[in-house]
Amino acid sequence: MEPLRVGLCGLGTVGQGVVELLARNASSIARRAGRSVIITRVASRTPKPEVDLAGATFSTRLDDVVRASDVDVVVETMGGEAAARQLMSDSCGAAKHFVTANKALIALHGQELLAAARNAGVMVRFEAAVAGGIPIVKALSEGLAGNRIHWIAGIINGTSNYILSAMASDGASFADALASAQALGYAEADPAFDVDGIDAAHKLSILSALAFDTPLQFDAVYTEGIGAITAEDIEYAAALGYRIKHLGITRRTSAGIEMRVHPTLVPETRLLSRVDGVTNAVVIHSDAVGASLYCGPGAGALPSASAVVADLIDVARGNALPAFGQDPAPARVPIDDIESAYYLRIPAADQPGVMARVAQILSSKEISIESVIQREQAIRADTGTAWVPVIILTHRVIERDLNQALREIQQLDDVVDTITRIRVETLDADG
Amino acid sequence: MEPLRVGLCGLGTVGQGVVELLARNASSIARRAGRSVIITRVASRTPKPEVDLAGATFSTRLDDVVRASDVDVVVETMGGEAAARQLMSDSCGAAKHFVTANKALIALHGQELLAAARNAGVMVRFEAAVAGGIPIVKALSEGLAGNRIHWIAGIINGTSNYILSAMASDGASFADALASAQALGYAEADPAFDVDGIDAAHKLSILSALAFDTPLQFDAVYTEGIGAITAEDIEYAAALGYRIKHLGITRRTSAGIEMRVHPTLVPETRLLSRVDGVTNAVVIHSDAVGASLYCGPGAGALPSASAVVADLIDVARGNALPAFGQDPAPARVPIDDIESAYYLRIPAADQPGVMARVAQILSSKEISIESVIQREQAIRADTGTAWVPVIILTHRVIERDLNQALREIQQLDDVVDTITRIRVETLDADG
Repeated sequence: MEPLRVGLCGLGTVGQGVVELLARNASSIARRAGRSVIITRVASRTPKPEVDLAGATFSTRLDDVVRASDVDVVVETMGGEAAARQLMSDSCGAAKHFVTANKALIALHGQELLAAARNAGVMVRFEAAVAGGIPIVKALSEGLAGNRIHWIAGIINGTSNYILSAMASDGASFADALASAQALGYAEADPAFDVDGIDAAHKLSILSALAFDTPLQFDAVYTEGIGAITAEDIEYAAALGYRIKHLGITRRTSAGIEMRVHPTLVPETRLLSRVDGVTNAVVIHSDAVGASLYCGPGAGALPSASAVVADLIDVARGNALPAFGQDPAPARVPIDDIESAYYLRIPAADQPGVMARVAQILSSKEISIESVIQREQAIRADTGTAWVPVIILTHRVIERDLNQALREIQQLDDVVDTITRIRVETLDADG
Repeated sequence: MEPLRVGLCGLGTVGQGVVELLARNASSIARRAGRSVIITRVASRTPKPEVDLAGATFSTRLDDVVRASDVDVVVETMGGEAAARQLMSDSCGAAKHFVTANKALIALHGQELLAAARNAGVMVRFEAAVAGGIPIVKALSEGLAGNRIHWIAGIINGTSNYILSAMASDGASFADALASAQALGYAEADPAFDVDGIDAAHKLSILSALAFDTPLQFDAVYTEGIGAITAEDIEYAAALGYRIKHLGITRRTSAGIEMRVHPTLVPETRLLSRVDGVTNAVVIHSDAVGASLYCGPGAGALPSASAVVADLIDVARGNALPAFGQDPAPARVPIDDIESAYYLRIPAADQPGVMARVAQILSSKEISIESVIQREQAIRADTGTAWVPVIILTHRVIERDLNQALREIQQLDDVVDTITRIRVETLDADG
């Protein structure tokens, strides 16, 4: 059978990983693909003479790949948005299959890409866009294809998970843990994209569309980063039997689809709470299987290349991604309407009756308390006032009601600083 | 497009699960399969009028399914060996695709089945044969298809894992934990198949063949069950920072392929050590991804049905399992030749110098000791002698050398009962 001819666009970390992996495991890849998978053309902004392209033709112009008659499939490992979007459009226009590792591209322009691919009769695959080395797109769209998905909860940003793990193991502050992540190359110089949750929101919107067969809708993801988490929150959470993880959560409810990315207390009895460092992990809860968990590296040259190569093997075998996005956009559940339990850290004056006043407000909104921790007194550096952190774990409640209660509590004279609120997910069958 | 017409053979737990799932999620299954998947014929030894077959034609004769012109794919959910083997052969003979949930069939006769299917030009799939609800066959043969697999270690028998988990959490004896598993329906009246490791060995031989592209070779699996594990071993292992799990392990070494099923000490820092109850979990270590973990229910009507339906969707889409078993049978590493660390429990007379004599023998074989626990004295019920369990964790050593040392230690006058030996696997990158 004719080889599958790959045109590789982008020769950064992931692109080089693809070159390396296709060369290293060429014979087993050919066996599994039913034919050889060879790179015939490579484009990159700057030549990289140190990379062995094994005879592929190099160009600094993307057009030399997209228009080439000896390319069957374009692999996009450039990253970024505008150029990648143009490439996918040109690639479909030239009737070439398209494999990408670009989560922003899929999250923001996937709908357009899928439509263009359908019109052009070509295959599109993006396994590397979510959770790098874990074949989660395949698990969701093929392995669990017989299931109705109830919810997904995942650690899908390695940088944030590394930082929270470091804070938990060393008691480090967010700033120190971030600096250590940057020193190790786990975080960018400008870390906002990761620690503010944007990267996780990109991935979550893709998982949600695959799971619920809905159009991609990145704008509808509620997104909160980890910048406000303190070492004390992690310690109090541990005392209550929880670990704090930055999760992407999407869920089908009677009101519509929830999509949210935020720090979350997870019971320490859950495997997901024990996934540390830059590792990613995704729990899928579905009607037939119940809970299943997929865990592995979320990024890196070779893990991402593994996903790209799996996609290429699928393209070689003619195994297109099953259609999705067929359900007309269902109602999205606004964050105010979700139901969750909450961890509250209330900085309160060390005076009798504070707890009673807080409890009274919660009770007036029918919010019941599961546990309370009251810690020893501290002194505010700026004012010299004595205060205590009051830690409360609530039962499940609608977020809007919780917010109303919090506004009232925040205005109590006893409350000396801003209240911290973190959502709690038990991850049991009913979510 | 024409519907995919299914002939279902076997209407037990899994068969009924398939009927239920295909009915319940019919529209999303059709969307993902690109066409409807409908059951046209059902065969079962005894009619089950309580099962709604939605118009499918029922027969007590398998032939009425295999020979039917309105069946494209035969689904085998009967279990057992002889009849299933005949069915797979007849099914290939009738040029029908074949999907099975039968691990014994694949482990023992898979080679024959794959050859027959190749000759007949039909697809064969068996996702449900290993780790029920976890799409592990797909992860291994498609999701990680670009990788060279180094090793696999998995909890692949739910019954054994339930028993070990119950022993660990309650301090129950093996016999009591087994009785509780039987009461809950997690173990058969005759539990040998599960607790002796045969079931795990079936599954391991399938995983090994998929991972290393080798022919199925069930007979070459070294198999040890959990019957000799005591609550004390679990307690001592915990004191050393380990949990005891019944693992299937297959590994590619320079000497060949290891395939073994046995109780194993796993560091409690590993996620795999925290997978409890009837849940299955498989760690795959490969060159590009490193370690990835897949975890979920290993059995049950709907998890198994989920796997069967995923296979049916693949058949509907024409996505055949990539060829495997192409490597000529490589050398199998005999259990004597493996390298492992070991946990030893040596029942010794409570006399000075015992530890020195044991250490001297180990040292003479160049076996170094990582840790030792010496517990308080106990009295042997039968002889009234005072004794102490000496617990030793060794560094890695060739099993043959360890066995020689153990024979000498066993013959020491100080050693008052049979030595227990359990392998230790750290599951780090080099295995």
